[in-house]
Amino acid sequence: MALPNPHGPEKKLMPLLLKGEEREAEIKKAESLPKVYMSSRETSDVLMLGIGAFTPLRGFMNKAEWQGCVYDLKLPDGTMWPMPVTLSITENELKAAGIKEGSEVALYDKESGELYATMKVEEIYTYDKEAECKEVFKTLDAEGHPGVAKVMAQGEYNMGGPIKVINEGKYREKYPKYYLYPEEARKLFEEKGWSSVVAFQTRNPMHRSHEYLCKFALESGFVDGCFIHAIVGKLKKGDIPGEVRVKCYEVLAEKYFPQESIAVGVYPMEMRYGGPREALLHAVFRQNWGCRYLIVGRDHAGVGDYYGPFDAQNIFNELWEGALELQPMKIAWTFYCHECQSMASLRTCPHPNESRVILSGTKFRRLMQEGADIPKEFGRPEVIEILREYYKTAEKVEIKKGAYEDITPDALKK
Amino acid sequence: MALPNPHGPEKKLMPLLLKGEEREAEIKKAESLPKVYMSSRETSDVLMLGIGAFTPLRGFMNKAEWQGCVYDLKLPDGTMWPMPVTLSITENELKAAGIKEGSEVALYDKESGELYATMKVEEIYTYDKEAECKEVFKTLDAEGHPGVAKVMAQGEYNMGGPIKVINEGKYREKYPKYYLYPEEARKLFEEKGWSSVVAFQTRNPMHRSHEYLCKFALESGFVDGCFIHAIVGKLKKGDIPGEVRVKCYEVLAEKYFPQESIAVGVYPMEMRYGGPREALLHAVFRQNWGCRYLIVGRDHAGVGDYYGPFDAQNIFNELWEGALELQPMKIAWTFYCHECQSMASLRTCPHPNESRVILSGTKFRRLMQEGADIPKEFGRPEVIEILREYYKTAEKVEIKKGAYEDITPDALKK
Repeated sequence: MALPNPHGPEKKLMPLLLKGEEREAEIKKAESLPKVYMSSRETSDVLMLGIGAFTPLRGFMNKAEWQGCVYDLKLPDGTMWPMPVTLSITENELKAAGIKEGSEVALYDKESGELYATMKVEEIYTYDKEAECKEVFKTLDAEGHPGVAKVMAQGEYNMGGPIKVINEGKYREKYPKYYLYPEEARKLFEEKGWSSVVAFQTRNPMHRSHEYLCKFALESGFVDGCFIHAIVGKLKKGDIPGEVRVKCYEVLAEKYFPQESIAVGVYPMEMRYGGPREALLHAVFRQNWGCRYLIVGRDHAGVGDYYGPFDAQNIFNELWEGALELQPMKIAWTFYCHECQSMASLRTCPHPNESRVILSGTKFRRLMQEGADIPKEFGRPEVIEILREYYKTAEKVEIKKGAYEDITPDALKK
Repeated sequence: MALPNPHGPEKKLMPLLLKGEEREAEIKKAESLPKVYMSSRETSDVLMLGIGAFTPLRGFMNKAEWQGCVYDLKLPDGTMWPMPVTLSITENELKAAGIKEGSEVALYDKESGELYATMKVEEIYTYDKEAECKEVFKTLDAEGHPGVAKVMAQGEYNMGGPIKVINEGKYREKYPKYYLYPEEARKLFEEKGWSSVVAFQTRNPMHRSHEYLCKFALESGFVDGCFIHAIVGKLKKGDIPGEVRVKCYEVLAEKYFPQESIAVGVYPMEMRYGGPREALLHAVFRQNWGCRYLIVGRDHAGVGDYYGPFDAQNIFNELWEGALELQPMKIAWTFYCHECQSMASLRTCPHPNESRVILSGTKFRRLMQEGADIPKEFGRPEVIEILREYYKTAEKVEIKKGAYEDITPDALKK
């Protein structure tokens, strides 16, 4: 058995990052091009395109691609693609920079002012933001939903066309051990003798419930390795920074997993909090990273109460034959149960809630901020220690009550 | 998704048990037929054929079937079949009863003297016992291997031909709640809303490691129910009787599994201790019982040290495309780990053996016979209690040291 193919009809990785002289020449050329300033989400998409994570996309979506993706989950050639990868611009910006269809432009990150890519503008088109939000995020609530807020704040035009990436940011310097291109991860898996890898997506520190999602997947016998694959792009306020989390993954992987079963990696995307649609996106690019399975647990990539706790598992049932080589591993809400004397889930534990150690991530963050005690069944002491250090100096933020904070597993049974 | 098809080209269950008037008439007819006395293994095969568990077999194997099965794992029509289902007879018996090819005969159980079936003798043939043992059991050691001993003690001829079953023994009376025909189990699964069922084969009382094989399978997300399916035919000396074990399964299923995830059943086969080949047989008839997966753990259906601990998992890799709809779930050696604070296996636990509660089934039986303490991490108190009661009055037998008794999980790592 070999690792699964990269996504798309050509079945090969298509990184858009230039190297060496080609890159130098492109940087030079960019100096004379009209400047376009990208939001942090757009910049993070350039990074993902650069390293081949968004294979087979060649750049930002044109109108037909946007439309197919938003309404039908597919690109015009039939390739499954669940979330827009678009570059927006306002009418004023277009005029000021003198950009037309056919122009070449240079793409800069708005926050840092750094040059990231060049782009051939094939199409400039208007698009229906509300339709996009409704289809993709299932809500129009720009106040509550960070993904919707970003789309609604975009310019009224999108520009579609292929890009050439010339900057990959500081991720490799920041995470020298864990910043792995899809190609590098595939090589690592092959070196480890893995042909069936399960990816664990995370934007949180890993507690025992997360550890057990990975362990259940390993025990199933369908995989020979687990890839803890953490998003380290921009998160929402109150989320724990990548540098801190990576220390948690590191100690957990080292002390609680056999080294032959585990690997850690990080990737530079920015969360869209798109729930089910984002779960599909996570699946698409995990296939590019060489993974055969993706763990999809409770409220995957969700925020607030916009999605049902298992919507992100169910959306995979809507895919057509051949849409994806990767398969989801749909794992239930896990917790420690004192009667089971073990981690368990509703699928395996018949005991009452009183026997269970249940703690939502949101509630955990609040407890940590308050310096309160954390039950040992909730998280490993080495991980809790790292987080305690972080919270000592972290800016205090208001942590809104999580949508599922007070829901107990039994409430989901009905 | 529907339950998987029964095994064989016709994809339907073919129980050979007669009912009502047809059965009465066959019993009447049997009175005048030559008598053949079956070994307990042969009788148990008649039971399995009767309830449709051995679909698509129509009776005992003829020479071409025996040959295909022994050497190539397949029947002449290409259907995968891993173990001989044969009826043997000696030359003297043949002569005394006046049986020839074309005869109809009545099949009696040697031990009880009860009539079980009639048979049309299509073929009487010699067969190479040593070749059978070498191919099927991988050993000729008739002293140590109970399966080999039985084959070597068989008559020098096999008789092949279709049978009609007229007796199903006392299993339904003895296990009214749990004796389920393949058809009944399928109905039960459908009533429970299960379409993907994992079977757990057992001939032992279930300890925590067995419980966790089932729980890991449930957590994987690939199944919606686990079927604890216990063999209650004849076992070897020192094994724990079916009635006692069923009480253990019952209490475990009731107290440690959600009722919507678990079912218990028993079946009347006699163990052959054929390791890998028997694992395939377990898979074939579990597919008939409607199961999509079979848990295959360490030393499945093995005895002594005739098989490597994971041979029974590996033999599934030798099957050809389409040989079987059911898939094995290959689960590792599990134990309780005090550092993990949970059940774990070599796939998930990196800790030293000293942190692990490791106890072989053989050693456990010896401890129980001696009335020694059993660590709570090894078995659930309710199960241990039932077994303690049993051992109070059970005949003391010599329990030979198990092949894997002193091997620690780490020794398997190499």
